[in-house]
Amino acid sequence: MPGNSFGHTFRFTTWGESHGPSIGCVVDGVPPRIALGEDDIQPWLDRRRPGQSRYTTQRREPDQVRILSGVFEGQTTGAPIALVIENVDQRPRDYSEISEKFRPGHADYTYWKKYGLRDYRGGGRASARETAMRVAAGGVARKVLDHLLDQPLAIRGALIQIADLVIDRERWDWDEVGRNPFFSPDPGIVESWADLLDRTRKSGSSAGAVIEVVASGMPAGLGEPAYDKLDADLAKAMMSINAVKGVEIGAGFGAAVLRGEDNADEMRMEGDRVVFLSNSAGGVLGGISTGQDLVARFAVKPTSSILTPRKTVNLSGENTEISTKGRHDPCVGIRAVPVGEAMMAVVLAGHLLRHRAQVGL
Amino acid sequence: MPGNSFGHTFRFTTWGESHGPSIGCVVDGVPPRIALGEDDIQPWLDRRRPGQSRYTTQRREPDQVRILSGVFEGQTTGAPIALVIENVDQRPRDYSEISEKFRPGHADYTYWKKYGLRDYRGGGRASARETAMRVAAGGVARKVLDHLLDQPLAIRGALIQIADLVIDRERWDWDEVGRNPFFSPDPGIVESWADLLDRTRKSGSSAGAVIEVVASGMPAGLGEPAYDKLDADLAKAMMSINAVKGVEIGAGFGAAVLRGEDNADEMRMEGDRVVFLSNSAGGVLGGISTGQDLVARFAVKPTSSILTPRKTVNLSGENTEISTKGRHDPCVGIRAVPVGEAMMAVVLAGHLLRHRAQVGL
Amino acid sequence: MPGNSFGHTFRFTTWGESHGPSIGCVVDGVPPRIALGEDDIQPWLDRRRPGQSRYTTQRREPDQVRILSGVFEGQTTGAPIALVIENVDQRPRDYSEISEKFRPGHADYTYWKKYGLRDYRGGGRASARETAMRVAAGGVARKVLDHLLDQPLAIRGALIQIADLVIDRERWDWDEVGRNPFFSPDPGIVESWADLLDRTRKSGSSAGAVIEVVASGMPAGLGEPAYDKLDADLAKAMMSINAVKGVEIGAGFGAAVLRGEDNADEMRMEGDRVVFLSNSAGGVLGGISTGQDLVARFAVKPTSSILTPRKTVNLSGENTEISTKGRHDPCVGIRAVPVGEAMMAVVLAGHLLRHRAQVGL
Amino acid sequence: MPGNSFGHTFRFTTWGESHGPSIGCVVDGVPPRIALGEDDIQPWLDRRRPGQSRYTTQRREPDQVRILSGVFEGQTTGAPIALVIENVDQRPRDYSEISEKFRPGHADYTYWKKYGLRDYRGGGRASARETAMRVAAGGVARKVLDHLLDQPLAIRGALIQIADLVIDRERWDWDEVGRNPFFSPDPGIVESWADLLDRTRKSGSSAGAVIEVVASGMPAGLGEPAYDKLDADLAKAMMSINAVKGVEIGAGFGAAVLRGEDNADEMRMEGDRVVFLSNSAGGVLGGISTGQDLVARFAVKPTSSILTPRKTVNLSGENTEISTKGRHDPCVGIRAVPVGEAMMAVVLAGHLLRHRAQVGL
Repeated sequence: MPGNSFGHTFRFTTWGESHGPSIGCVVDGVPPRIALGEDDIQPWLDRRRPGQSRYTTQRREPDQVRILSGVFEGQTTGAPIALVIENVDQRPRDYSEISEKFRPGHADYTYWKKYGLRDYRGGGRASARETAMRVAAGGVARKVLDHLLDQPLAIRGALIQIADLVIDRERWDWDEVGRNPFFSPDPGIVESWADLLDRTRKSGSSAGAVIEVVASGMPAGLGEPAYDKLDADLAKAMMSINAVKGVEIGAGFGAAVLRGEDNADEMRMEGDRVVFLSNSAGGVLGGISTGQDLVARFAVKPTSSILTPRKTVNLSGENTEISTKGRHDPCVGIRAVPVGEAMMAVVLAGHLLRHRAQVGL
Repeated sequence: MPGNSFGHTFRFTTWGESHGPSIGCVVDGVPPRIALGEDDIQPWLDRRRPGQSRYTTQRREPDQVRILSGVFEGQTTGAPIALVIENVDQRPRDYSEISEKFRPGHADYTYWKKYGLRDYRGGGRASARETAMRVAAGGVARKVLDHLLDQPLAIRGALIQIADLVIDRERWDWDEVGRNPFFSPDPGIVESWADLLDRTRKSGSSAGAVIEVVASGMPAGLGEPAYDKLDADLAKAMMSINAVKGVEIGAGFGAAVLRGEDNADEMRMEGDRVVFLSNSAGGVLGGISTGQDLVARFAVKPTSSILTPRKTVNLSGENTEISTKGRHDPCVGIRAVPVGEAMMAVVLAGHLLRHRAQVGL
Repeated sequence: MPGNSFGHTFRFTTWGESHGPSIGCVVDGVPPRIALGEDDIQPWLDRRRPGQSRYTTQRREPDQVRILSGVFEGQTTGAPIALVIENVDQRPRDYSEISEKFRPGHADYTYWKKYGLRDYRGGGRASARETAMRVAAGGVARKVLDHLLDQPLAIRGALIQIADLVIDRERWDWDEVGRNPFFSPDPGIVESWADLLDRTRKSGSSAGAVIEVVASGMPAGLGEPAYDKLDADLAKAMMSINAVKGVEIGAGFGAAVLRGEDNADEMRMEGDRVVFLSNSAGGVLGGISTGQDLVARFAVKPTSSILTPRKTVNLSGENTEISTKGRHDPCVGIRAVPVGEAMMAVVLAGHLLRHRAQVGL
Repeated sequence: MPGNSFGHTFRFTTWGESHGPSIGCVVDGVPPRIALGEDDIQPWLDRRRPGQSRYTTQRREPDQVRILSGVFEGQTTGAPIALVIENVDQRPRDYSEISEKFRPGHADYTYWKKYGLRDYRGGGRASARETAMRVAAGGVARKVLDHLLDQPLAIRGALIQIADLVIDRERWDWDEVGRNPFFSPDPGIVESWADLLDRTRKSGSSAGAVIEVVASGMPAGLGEPAYDKLDADLAKAMMSINAVKGVEIGAGFGAAVLRGEDNADEMRMEGDRVVFLSNSAGGVLGGISTGQDLVARFAVKPTSSILTPRKTVNLSGENTEISTKGRHDPCVGIRAVPVGEAMMAVVLAGHLLRHRAQVGL
């Protein structure tokens, strides 16, 4: 029941703070005899790693993952897989100001109210650093999915909005995602996003974003009818990512505006295959996958670690101001793209295994 | 792990299909010595009951709840509380057409793909009837919250949008919610919603909606840092309700458009109390409650049970058309209001008990 | 987390008190398309039913089970299966004496210390009546095992000891188990057990017993290495049965006296099959089944509901005496035989499904 | 659901193989603001450490534990606590013989049947090395119990039997346990045990043992009525320890031989306190603690790692023989004493936290 594990059949448990010696996770429930090495996980971590462009934090964390258990002679054994990453960039810092004040929009205040203490060194468990282990677990989940599914399953994320600048979906090209520092599928918006973020950083502010994650090549039948619906688990997975404030599936909030006949995706036979004429459902009906693309979107708020001074209070109960110095992302949404992909991967691996438990493959 | 239970410390497990003899749930983990009777649960069910206006289905289900266990001499004993509701309105029906065809936008197809069978009598577990037991469990959860909290906690929901007709938040009045058939907090929109739904029903169509649920009087400190964040659990809870396609907390998707300094809720002392100057966070920071109002919104798609004929396929793999006759809600979002409240109540009861486990009250 | 559910992939949740209107359970995680009717469950309940001989309580409970959900046209649907049994024999009784006193050896005192209240009508959740739902869930589990396994799996229990009268294992004959009121596999001991229990009842006392449960036709490979070892889960399952005070696997406590070379079961090839030359392991090594017979034994204490007066205290904190009148079993161990079988069935069904999740069948 | 986690409210998850770089665990659910350092855990590990007498394996593992997370400035923060121990003594070894053969009485065969692979380097997850992390988690659990309970709770284990040599309970002295290499509470038996084990080792054999673990200073009211009974969870905890084949509570299997009036512990008032005149129950009634000493016993089989050659089969399906060389314990039961204590500690910490969740302290 404690909150540092995710999933049931495929379950990972993470630990570690941004300013401790290391962070890690234990992935349990992985089927045996899957080829797995650090090379299968590292590329996903590299995509998330900070310091790769001027639009993400300049902290230097190589984020080299090591596998400590659960793999023998290059294959999973069925035993728990422990992954660990050393924390490298822990510069000595002057915490004297921040240690006494709550940062508005941060978890400082709520952790203090809950646990009765203040770890002033950084975000602790609330740090975005925790998301590195989600990405690592996601790398393992992808291997599980590849191993068990007949057809390739592509789980891909993209940034589709920064502040009020939204991509043009007509220009969507998955190949573009890897060619710009924003994971944008639309090359036409890259320059205006770059301009916006340069201005945002210079003004000591930050920007929000929207991410879309899509799984293509989905099997039909994954999910559960009632409380562990596939979309409910995705909603939890995405909303559990730091700074996320909203989650949509398929047409999402837009579905509220559609008429019934426009929202219900019509069906046709194409040879002996069922096809849908649209995908308002985002690939899920009644909590179970249809086989269409699984489409989730989530909104990331602008980080509250900004230079602009804000009103706050301190531990002594006095009014004061705070401005957060340091190496922060002007748009934390960018690095949330690989995290969102990873969370979709772990949800799908979990539902695939539990489907195999109850129904078989 | 099977998907018909919700929650951990406060857990309910439901069963039953829309066309079976009854539906029920078992609520486990309830503290002992809380006064509880059917009268504490029935009023919430009555709010959700169909057939109360011409804007909801004309099915007649009295939805009388009975407590079968876990209560002795008017008090909870700590043992599991079994609740049951008889299914009354099971008119004999001709299923010959529907039994062979998949209804677009319904779970028919996905259940068939998952389980390999077709319960043609109705929605089975996918029926909105299942939500009655969520409301019943929510009634128990409210009693737990009342019992354990020092201050009254009000969990209230309202309909804030049907199709593209959005309420005017300036006119928000909680007292109005009980005075119109739509749970609208804005009396000014009731007439236009009524017109819209009359037209929608006459045209054999349906409309989507957006619901907002707010908990006022929240204690600070409820929630978990990583995967079981309070907002993540709320997202799962709301997304697990039938027909929901999107969930937001606080500023939600709107947060993506805000600048960092506008999104971070500033803090001030008011006497010896911390107050926030805004509530973009919706009452949650880092997955833990701030003590501000907890604000969640969710979008409900228009029901796919419509008279307008739609293209579909049948069990024999042939193209065909379907039009769903019967007594359906033109806007299923209306009756989702008490369901959303109930889901917030069970999430909060669960987090309150697990907070008591780890930290104490 | 609340304690009224058992299992993970195959999970049942029970509710109900001995003096309430009914008792029930919800079985979740059952694979779809298994033929299941009340006829598949009732025979197991009939074996456990009281009042079938003068050696069990004379309470009259027909224990007719009804399936309320999860089955359609004679097949499981994959939805939760709700089972219910009405409580018939609730004679009005005078509780004036018992309601104020604690019965030594009963849960009266511990429930009162835990929950702060006293349900004086009977055992409440502590009543052996609760075990009826274990047997019902076990009936469903057997169907799951039959459905998924290639070879027939026989789960059979027998009474092997009452007080200090132990069967002669040389005379073990499974066919005898159904031919005497004690579930004895040894016909030679029946008369002495009958004599003993007649004397026990007349003297207002009670007797303990030892039960052995064996699964034959086991697949190898079921179980988990560390905490959810197959034998660990069996130990929990058996120890959770009312009045059980000890559990053994294979050689059990006798293994402590063996030398290493005598305890380690040697292996030989028999054609292309591995056979073991003995079964000290009881069919489990390292928490995982070997394919040999799975052998568990458990000890049941003599019931404390006896006529012989015993020293106790009352709710007012005064010393007093108590003697328990009523229709109690002189040896509750007898009726524990079908309960032990049922618990082994639910453990095996759960491990089979989780094995299918991680490894496949 | 995967099997490498134990517990719910207080939960630990372990990882690591005997021949990997390290082993570790993550302890989740620990209350905040408990003073905790490596010094609180190391002494318990030192008691279990091999190589401390000639009666335990001569492997040299310093077993130095490190805390990697969840503690800040000497106090728990409420975040998960990661513990790690480096594997030091990994001598290069010739596995050519053992890698092809199954060791009778070991998990080699069952792991191979389950996972389809053979980690020939040692026991892998089945190694007794895994129990080091149980002891570490137990150290944390003890701190939780100390922190939350009003009165000191002593959890102490003792070896009470090796082979057929049983201690004299009249001579029981807890202080003696630390003064001999066997954790014996009876100094009178130490010499005969030493003789026995010297002979056992010389003859290339091994011996079984029985351990008793007692918690004194127990609060009444811990436990659950149905499936998560305190004794059921203890049974699972103890049976999950490597090589354990039987578990008893209180009178245990001896209860089967008692008459009802002798087994039921009578109650008396002693001032305003309830006292029991005996403790056949072992401190648990109806799954809930009475406040008396909690008494559990478990039997450990003789290790199968013996020099005496035994019949077995190899991976090619041929009959062969095996004799296990190496540095093995002649009586693995000795080092099981601190492991048994640790398992009782984690069970009690878990039940204390879940009791606080549902009922409060």
